[in-house]
Amino acid sequence: MSTIRVPQVVPSPDKDCEAINNACKRLGTDEKALIRILGCRNAAQRRLIRDAYHQIYNSSLIDCLNDELSGDFRKAVILWTYDPWERDARLANEALKSRRKNLTELQVIAEIACATSPHHLVAVRQAYCSLFHSSLEEDIISNVSLPLQKILLSLVSSYRYDKEAVDSSVAKMEAAKLREAIQAKKLDDDELWRILSTRNTFQLRKTFQLYKDDYGTSIDKDIMACGKGIVESVMKVVIWCLDTPEKHFSEVIRASIVGLGTDEDSLTRAIVTRAEIDMMKVRAEYFNANKSSLDNAVIGDTAGDYKDFLMTLLGAKI
Amino acid sequence: MSTIRVPQVVPSPDKDCEAINNACKRLGTDEKALIRILGCRNAAQRRLIRDAYHQIYNSSLIDCLNDELSGDFRKAVILWTYDPWERDARLANEALKSRRKNLTELQVIAEIACATSPHHLVAVRQAYCSLFHSSLEEDIISNVSLPLQKILLSLVSSYRYDKEAVDSSVAKMEAAKLREAIQAKKLDDDELWRILSTRNTFQLRKTFQLYKDDYGTSIDKDIMACGKGIVESVMKVVIWCLDTPEKHFSEVIRASIVGLGTDEDSLTRAIVTRAEIDMMKVRAEYFNANKSSLDNAVIGDTAGDYKDFLMTLLGAKI
Repeated sequence: MSTIRVPQVVPSPDKDCEAINNACKRLGTDEKALIRILGCRNAAQRRLIRDAYHQIYNSSLIDCLNDELSGDFRKAVILWTYDPWERDARLANEALKSRRKNLTELQVIAEIACATSPHHLVAVRQAYCSLFHSSLEEDIISNVSLPLQKILLSLVSSYRYDKEAVDSSVAKMEAAKLREAIQAKKLDDDELWRILSTRNTFQLRKTFQLYKDDYGTSIDKDIMACGKGIVESVMKVVIWCLDTPEKHFSEVIRASIVGLGTDEDSLTRAIVTRAEIDMMKVRAEYFNANKSSLDNAVIGDTAGDYKDFLMTLLGAKI
Repeated sequence: MSTIRVPQVVPSPDKDCEAINNACKRLGTDEKALIRILGCRNAAQRRLIRDAYHQIYNSSLIDCLNDELSGDFRKAVILWTYDPWERDARLANEALKSRRKNLTELQVIAEIACATSPHHLVAVRQAYCSLFHSSLEEDIISNVSLPLQKILLSLVSSYRYDKEAVDSSVAKMEAAKLREAIQAKKLDDDELWRILSTRNTFQLRKTFQLYKDDYGTSIDKDIMACGKGIVESVMKVVIWCLDTPEKHFSEVIRASIVGLGTDEDSLTRAIVTRAEIDMMKVRAEYFNANKSSLDNAVIGDTAGDYKDFLMTLLGAKI
């Protein structure tokens, strides 16, 4: 379900490094060459390129990209070049350290905790400790106030069972518990977050389905009926990321380009983080929801190397 | 600070396997040979032996030990032969599935969460999912009632920063928060468990020290003054495991052998889990606290191969 186009015969990491170095050494960086190489390698291949670059040139590929590129294009390429767990640790840190604490920032933490694998989440927590000399949990406590602090803490601490194991009677019982808390507008209820942060995603999808079957409305709609505050919005993101991440990321992309101006950070994040996971599904979902093509939307709202890079991650040939 | 005696020249895993196989094939297993080999290899070496055994004999070393040995000796040798994270996942599962939920059972979870490294705790959670088809957190929810459920959940979900980073002003402030909750006998206070489950152990040791400096009593004494229930007891174990694990394990060993009869499961667990971590310190602490030698206590309360195996882990030559 990845959209990137890895060539059938991939050059050796050493050859890729040589090409990258040539692209950077030129008077006027050859951005297209960088896009063609890095944009068409998967995470493991990019890792090998980074390692080889360090060995051959005794300097960091990230530093080189930082020196040679600029603007949104630079940010996108660098995020893409990090290991996925390091990228997410940096995105989480940036969100927590931002002075604003709107949905735009806080949903990043919910995405990492709910729309990735348990193994990836642990790797992000480990990377976070190595990079920022404190744990992700400590930084949530220092930077987010209650009740969101408690909610995000329980989500990032989760290590869900990662295989399909569904117990319908538990799902039915827990759907009732969720309903009860939501009806009482107790969105910070301990039991509610215990369910959302410990159950495996297959089990939770069953719970959400039974919620709709038994009570006639979907859980996300019931949550939004509680109010229009940040807690409701974050909780809706959590439900979507657990249930249908493609729906959430399609919405992030739509929100980033709708109206005047573009929220490049959100657009970049959605495409860079999902290109190798479920971008095909995000694209289909985008089309269903908006009756227009995601690719055209990106083309219409971006330009230059930045556009070419995002389109490469979406599978276009530039 | 390990007490096991790894020989200066370690035989190859293949040679060890051959010797183990010979010891098992004899009419009447040669237990002493098994003790001499497995009891004198560190975790990485035991792993290599297990892998080599599987390759050479196309069967599991654990199954072989299970068939050949018996009683407390068998249980101790098998626990020792597992990878440390698999061993702890099995101990946690056994504690949670036990019908009794006394301190003896529940402290096992506190030990794993508070007296091991963050990396080890994550490995235990991963192993737990693989072995038992549900997460450790789900099994805590199913098997432990509130408020201990909430307490254990927050502890096993932690991933603490693992380097020495201490902020004295935060420690002072958090010591005051802990004191306030304890004075109010609110031992299930959210804020209290947020501090105990997210701060790194160096930071917490500073907090406990300032608690004593500022309020004249140590935090564990104040907790036990709240009552003699299971919550107080588990919380004291948590504090000791975070602050001075050697004190906790010295006490586990003392309690396991004091009076009539021996609690072999606890004795085995304490020695097997700490032999490679801090058994030297546990031994010193035991002597300080009881004015008698831990080694003599073990010799006095155990017998046969079981005694020889525990004593080998304690560094004796048998």
